[in-house]
Amino acid sequence: MMAGHIICAGLGPGEPDLISLRADRAIRAARAVAWFCKAGRQGQARRMVEGMLRPDAVEFPMEYPLTTELPPDHPDYIARMAAFYDACAVRLVEMAATSDVVVLCEGEPFLYGSFMHLQTRLQGRIPIEVIPGIPGMVGCWNAIGQPVTWGDDALIVLPGTLPQAELTARMGAAEAIVVMKLGRNLPKVRRALAEAGRLPDAFLVEHGTMPGQRITRLADHPGGDCPYFALIVVHGHGRRPEAEGAA
Amino acid sequence: MMAGHIICAGLGPGEPDLISLRADRAIRAARAVAWFCKAGRQGQARRMVEGMLRPDAVEFPMEYPLTTELPPDHPDYIARMAAFYDACAVRLVEMAATSDVVVLCEGEPFLYGSFMHLQTRLQGRIPIEVIPGIPGMVGCWNAIGQPVTWGDDALIVLPGTLPQAELTARMGAAEAIVVMKLGRNLPKVRRALAEAGRLPDAFLVEHGTMPGQRITRLADHPGGDCPYFALIVVHGHGRRPEAEGAA
Repeated sequence: MMAGHIICAGLGPGEPDLISLRADRAIRAARAVAWFCKAGRQGQARRMVEGMLRPDAVEFPMEYPLTTELPPDHPDYIARMAAFYDACAVRLVEMAATSDVVVLCEGEPFLYGSFMHLQTRLQGRIPIEVIPGIPGMVGCWNAIGQPVTWGDDALIVLPGTLPQAELTARMGAAEAIVVMKLGRNLPKVRRALAEAGRLPDAFLVEHGTMPGQRITRLADHPGGDCPYFALIVVHGHGRRPEAEGAA
Repeated sequence: MMAGHIICAGLGPGEPDLISLRADRAIRAARAVAWFCKAGRQGQARRMVEGMLRPDAVEFPMEYPLTTELPPDHPDYIARMAAFYDACAVRLVEMAATSDVVVLCEGEPFLYGSFMHLQTRLQGRIPIEVIPGIPGMVGCWNAIGQPVTWGDDALIVLPGTLPQAELTARMGAAEAIVVMKLGRNLPKVRRALAEAGRLPDAFLVEHGTMPGQRITRLADHPGGDCPYFALIVVHGHGRRPEAEGAA
């Protein structure tokens, strides 16, 4: 008899009070929770719900296997990750035999979220509910404090893992730009922004809406790497309210 | 003596329990609230907070002037809207003399939100706080129930107001596509998606996460218009979890 559901709760950009009421309720009621984290680390998702869990909640940290020696397109990497997600899915189904299981996910689960690896394995086997969250990029542009899109602006969200020429070309398709997955990709992304003529408008947000938040103009950044979960934001320049005031 | 702040509260995509804890707290504590709406209508923002307001809260519906006879780039339209926003800003500052004023904003205020027209007028005159919300597009793709971006996918968010050729060209820059501001633009957007080869993948979400929510494949849509606050979602097709399973 299957008693529980898998509930993926989007946690939003970092600050616990930016969690939705629905996710907050699910987390506080949970008899079982799971989350992805690096081996031996508590993980950002678990840290965000500190003090919210029932004292008797069963906790399942889904610790990523150590694969740093392999590139993400290597067959061994792919096989090892697939086996890891398979094992997580099996364990989650076991846990759900006695209660709902809440999977904690930073940001918005359907926007580059790791939960998709579980969803493809659990679909059809067990009921799944996904509670949306405020995406990390929204928290970052909120921290800068200006609208990211205006009027007829388009917004493009790019992973910094793309090749430089592709980044440059795609940046030309939108007035507002967000670049994610930075880390070691930062110098390449910076060159792409310069080529696209948008470097002077680019902000780098590190640890957005979290302790240690830092906002710098990318042009003023000393160079080198940055945290993987940093973001670049370039604001749009479409039809602006100022133009109205001037009319 | 200035007593209050202007607090813009992002309400999220529609369902009241998708509001953040922070916005919920601000709305329930508010002694004064304001929101944009069509003349003579209650408005979606006000409807979303039904039952949440203090009984003694002062309510200020900011009713848009009737400008339907004018195109948005007509000088008279621009002047009339500017005068309207000016008047709203003056009234909000007056209201803030005695308490905080919470401005209710659907979705995420910094993503095509109307609050920007007030922010440019209030900045430097009064302290402003913006509480982020789950964007409407997140609610719509959550309703479809599949990840919108995977691995190295890029996402482009386009206003349906752009010319057809520009829409087509920009759609080519990303694997995942969201098109907003549909309404009368729907037939044009549909042609652009067909030209870009993405029509078979496009979902139309009307009234996302609200009563009357309807999800259809755009290719199956009978044609004609749709609500202005409908959205098109085309999912990305990057590095997929299935590929791992097959490895």
